[in-house]
Amino acid sequence: MSDTATMQAVAKTQSGPGFETIQAEVPTPGPRDVLIKVQATSVCGTDVHIYKWDTWSQGRIKPPLIVGHEFTGEIVAVGAHVRPNESQVGDFVSAESHIVCGTCQQCRLGLGHICPNTRIIGVDTDGCYAEYIAIPVENTWRNPASMSVAVASLQENFGNAVHTVAAVDVRGKTVLVTGCGPAGLMSIPVARAFGAEVIVATDLSPYRLDLARKVGADLAINPATENLAARASDAVRDKGFDVLLEMSGAPPALVQGLDLLKPGGDAALLGLAPGKLTDFDLNNLVIMKGVTVHGIAGRRLWETWYQMRALLAAGVVDLQPIITHEFPLSRWRDALETMASGKSGKIVMYPGE
Amino acid sequence: MSDTATMQAVAKTQSGPGFETIQAEVPTPGPRDVLIKVQATSVCGTDVHIYKWDTWSQGRIKPPLIVGHEFTGEIVAVGAHVRPNESQVGDFVSAESHIVCGTCQQCRLGLGHICPNTRIIGVDTDGCYAEYIAIPVENTWRNPASMSVAVASLQENFGNAVHTVAAVDVRGKTVLVTGCGPAGLMSIPVARAFGAEVIVATDLSPYRLDLARKVGADLAINPATENLAARASDAVRDKGFDVLLEMSGAPPALVQGLDLLKPGGDAALLGLAPGKLTDFDLNNLVIMKGVTVHGIAGRRLWETWYQMRALLAAGVVDLQPIITHEFPLSRWRDALETMASGKSGKIVMYPGE
Amino acid sequence: MSDTATMQAVAKTQSGPGFETIQAEVPTPGPRDVLIKVQATSVCGTDVHIYKWDTWSQGRIKPPLIVGHEFTGEIVAVGAHVRPNESQVGDFVSAESHIVCGTCQQCRLGLGHICPNTRIIGVDTDGCYAEYIAIPVENTWRNPASMSVAVASLQENFGNAVHTVAAVDVRGKTVLVTGCGPAGLMSIPVARAFGAEVIVATDLSPYRLDLARKVGADLAINPATENLAARASDAVRDKGFDVLLEMSGAPPALVQGLDLLKPGGDAALLGLAPGKLTDFDLNNLVIMKGVTVHGIAGRRLWETWYQMRALLAAGVVDLQPIITHEFPLSRWRDALETMASGKSGKIVMYPGE
Amino acid sequence: MSDTATMQAVAKTQSGPGFETIQAEVPTPGPRDVLIKVQATSVCGTDVHIYKWDTWSQGRIKPPLIVGHEFTGEIVAVGAHVRPNESQVGDFVSAESHIVCGTCQQCRLGLGHICPNTRIIGVDTDGCYAEYIAIPVENTWRNPASMSVAVASLQENFGNAVHTVAAVDVRGKTVLVTGCGPAGLMSIPVARAFGAEVIVATDLSPYRLDLARKVGADLAINPATENLAARASDAVRDKGFDVLLEMSGAPPALVQGLDLLKPGGDAALLGLAPGKLTDFDLNNLVIMKGVTVHGIAGRRLWETWYQMRALLAAGVVDLQPIITHEFPLSRWRDALETMASGKSGKIVMYPGE
Repeated sequence: MSDTATMQAVAKTQSGPGFETIQAEVPTPGPRDVLIKVQATSVCGTDVHIYKWDTWSQGRIKPPLIVGHEFTGEIVAVGAHVRPNESQVGDFVSAESHIVCGTCQQCRLGLGHICPNTRIIGVDTDGCYAEYIAIPVENTWRNPASMSVAVASLQENFGNAVHTVAAVDVRGKTVLVTGCGPAGLMSIPVARAFGAEVIVATDLSPYRLDLARKVGADLAINPATENLAARASDAVRDKGFDVLLEMSGAPPALVQGLDLLKPGGDAALLGLAPGKLTDFDLNNLVIMKGVTVHGIAGRRLWETWYQMRALLAAGVVDLQPIITHEFPLSRWRDALETMASGKSGKIVMYPGE
Repeated sequence: MSDTATMQAVAKTQSGPGFETIQAEVPTPGPRDVLIKVQATSVCGTDVHIYKWDTWSQGRIKPPLIVGHEFTGEIVAVGAHVRPNESQVGDFVSAESHIVCGTCQQCRLGLGHICPNTRIIGVDTDGCYAEYIAIPVENTWRNPASMSVAVASLQENFGNAVHTVAAVDVRGKTVLVTGCGPAGLMSIPVARAFGAEVIVATDLSPYRLDLARKVGADLAINPATENLAARASDAVRDKGFDVLLEMSGAPPALVQGLDLLKPGGDAALLGLAPGKLTDFDLNNLVIMKGVTVHGIAGRRLWETWYQMRALLAAGVVDLQPIITHEFPLSRWRDALETMASGKSGKIVMYPGE
Repeated sequence: MSDTATMQAVAKTQSGPGFETIQAEVPTPGPRDVLIKVQATSVCGTDVHIYKWDTWSQGRIKPPLIVGHEFTGEIVAVGAHVRPNESQVGDFVSAESHIVCGTCQQCRLGLGHICPNTRIIGVDTDGCYAEYIAIPVENTWRNPASMSVAVASLQENFGNAVHTVAAVDVRGKTVLVTGCGPAGLMSIPVARAFGAEVIVATDLSPYRLDLARKVGADLAINPATENLAARASDAVRDKGFDVLLEMSGAPPALVQGLDLLKPGGDAALLGLAPGKLTDFDLNNLVIMKGVTVHGIAGRRLWETWYQMRALLAAGVVDLQPIITHEFPLSRWRDALETMASGKSGKIVMYPGE
Repeated sequence: MSDTATMQAVAKTQSGPGFETIQAEVPTPGPRDVLIKVQATSVCGTDVHIYKWDTWSQGRIKPPLIVGHEFTGEIVAVGAHVRPNESQVGDFVSAESHIVCGTCQQCRLGLGHICPNTRIIGVDTDGCYAEYIAIPVENTWRNPASMSVAVASLQENFGNAVHTVAAVDVRGKTVLVTGCGPAGLMSIPVARAFGAEVIVATDLSPYRLDLARKVGADLAINPATENLAARASDAVRDKGFDVLLEMSGAPPALVQGLDLLKPGGDAALLGLAPGKLTDFDLNNLVIMKGVTVHGIAGRRLWETWYQMRALLAAGVVDLQPIITHEFPLSRWRDALETMASGKSGKIVMYPGE
């Protein structure tokens, strides 16, 4: 590639709603970076937040910025200090989107997923809604050749689901999944693969409840129109759930989920609420029941990736049914609007199409 | 004892504030019960709630009821089906105050502390503010002969502190204790004994902060008048605490404690808030930091009691400085009012004096 | 039943090899016992040891003794102090074969499976190769009505397999199962259900290797005739296994299994060696690799039973293929000889046929 | 420093017993290395093995090699790619002796202590019995200015003890330490600091048993001349130990230690046996008792170092009494012979004296 090579990319060019298609320079990898030709990139709810320019985005995003952080592709160049056992030209890789510092206490303890110095691809550094992206070699993960690029792209988000499920012990347990957006949907086959006896999923959207059934929920219930406790009663033998996986961020889902937990149950929380909780009965929902609540951030580096690899290699989790839409990258607007509509699972885009 | 033997006891005789001294029949132990001559009984915050007849008491207490649940004494009679290796006349015992069902899932899993069928001595059944009490043999714990009756009585409450500290790993950790009431105070030497590097305690009461220093807090800080983060900064190397032990139930303490936790930290919550939380930033305080929150109820049956035994036998925890007042049981009113004033550690009463 | 009711039973009537069919009195349940009409009983390797009168049996068994400890049946009478929520006439139950003391430290800590005062049904007390058996109500486990009596009988032994697998984390892990006797065979679908990515099983018997394939092993290998490391190499990505489940008791299997473990791997050992190890490289097999070795005894009370219930209810483990032979109880000699031949999975017998 | 600067060092110059004092070039740090002026270096049993040229050394050591791996010093130069937040000239550092690859599965999982590609300073690369040493910046650990150089040097070995104790839960437990060499001695105050109730130490050497008492063992017993079980009986309440820390590598100590463990106990093994075990009753010592055995290698990266920092900062572990001898580096022969005699704790040497 010559120094002046350019590429198509999707960027937030100025403060305010919306993205633009731009021509950008193909990035030059630093000494410990690799340059990846993007083969597929998938849409995350965070991308929609940045697109719509919500409060969080306004405080965090510094335009101009190429967006997107879920992707897969082929390595086309490596920096001078990249060792062959780390990455080589031709490798088919996905990327961990969290660039961690490697030197803080969390990183030195193997807890990079909560490194306080984390920079996120497509949020703090240029992202993958583009033909090429350069990232640190430490952030690459080699995929098997047999994996589809669509599934390979999804792994970053899949990792949130795997991390959430793996944070608790679901072996032989009754599990309530509140929220059937992409991460919630993906958590269902993972909970099954890791030994859950019964999985009950909830959402307000009939579209998503259908997807939940498709990926293996024993029951998929709309708690606004059905009596969740009564419907689940047989499945949990009148006892409450052993485990709550809160994937929605909706406060009523959190409260109902904790209320339906058994004494001594575990709750893993991935969903982020729209704001502070204004009416939360910590005494009865957590303390007096002896519940343990696990806040979940990102993916364990690299435990979660090894778990993902195993789940996909064993064939016990099939992400294909969760991919509901595919677009060329040039139709990013359609992709984002579809995601925003709530009537989708995961959406994958393909640069260069 | 003849069938008509009577004893002095302190009881809630009718709905409404206050207790009365009554003459009651000495209880007759059932086939699996033991009769204990009470040698010391200590005052719990719960006793004050019942005395004052707060909202919780109004919903739970059914007068007439002899109150009190922290005590020690000597076994003076055993039921027909009590085996000698369980209890014998002459045993010096303390009591677990939670009478559990033994047949529910929690009990069968060794999680009796969260048995949903728990009845509490002095709350749901007649208590120990009396000369004698009959309880199930399963609820007795043999003490070493060398233990003082004052310390022996405290163990029920001490167990809350031990359970809270033991629920997390404090080995080599920096620990924040919010709330220096009796359980908070007792948690300080326990955290030290279990390996905490640094212990910072907070309370609004100078009296209690003095006690906290006396029992070994490295720093004891009033967060209303001092900058806790700044004061603790050196002790935690500018990083936040590894562990929060929330012993106060005060929402501002909970929020500040979680805010000062490191990413990946652990919080064990024993204190009960006066009501629901109305302004709780779960996203930033728990989820995105990857914090684990442990709700703590009662004492592990019987792991906590074995831990208490070890801590007291090793001499690494001294509960004596936490006992600030002693009264004959007949002066229960003075004891309860002193407890209610906030100017006390533990208060021990002696029947028959 | 009248006091003089008798029943057919199979017993060790005197020191020495062999059993006899006897007429015995139907047992009378004590106040905390239940009387069970045996519907099915299965053969354990231990029964074969007692039958053959091996060294262990000579030291442990005190004739006369009705043998057998794996069974299921219907409760036909309950003792005076059995509560209805514990057991009722008509209940369809299986039995935990370990009668534990309930008062030792292990029992009080929820670790009854290693109670030092354990008495075993059919070993220390009269067993279930009979039309009726009386056992403590605490040892009963209620089965769903839909469960077959053959599967219900197997649960005691199934619990050994579940306990072994559950003692380690197999989620996303590569697992080596050494030994495909009944417990080894049963561990295969359990490991799958609890999340194992790859399961490789070994045995010297082609018959058992066929059964291993049938119940789901990815590879079933005879290490005496095949190069296990080479055959498993692809499955474990040239890295060694994450987990060893040692179910054979054969020292060469143990050594090979530990040798093929990754650094930091986990080994759960259920199989008992015929004697002491005479050539065991603890340094290289365990210490320098940072391996953790879990000795497995019995079933966790009652965690393992809840896990079994979940596995069978979810339909993720099917024990039916492991049942290779069925006999009327009167043909106990055929059953025991078949078991001793090594050419069987589990063998179930039916009294009264 | 000029390119031709030389320094004094102690090296294995050829295959066979012994070391020599040599003049070596001061090493030049690579781009990710730091150059350290050695202020203190301590003697490890491994150094004695290399000195004596035992079987292990003959297979592993490739002369010429500067030996030694426990040390502390000041950074006097840093490589071109070392970042200031990692290391700076003037830093007072100790060193992790295991140089790990950073790219294998173990390393990516935060389990660098069992990286299969580990190279050890002073074993596989030039060591610290010298005036200067260059090591990767990732292997440095910053010490507080107030720490003595003698204690700072000991940390590598101290970490073995901390790792061993921390691998199990000693809170409120009775602990048996078999072997009072340096690592065994150091494990005693660590076990105390992490909450052990009772610590019983064994060794065959009266000299070492005296040191064990000095650092806090409740009982220090010679099992060859005393009845360990009887002597410890009161301390463990006739029940066996909760935890075994095997620090000797002596097979009889391992066997006796496991024999005296409670059912369900934990054993952490650091000591390496002189060869294979020839008479090891795995059934009774491990499996049927439900014991968990933890093989311990190296130090957790970097959890163990953080724990060490906390223990030393809190002042709850004092390593000073364990330092029994000090020499100038030029008297390395005296240091090694003293170590070999068994009549020493830790021995510290000072270059340039």
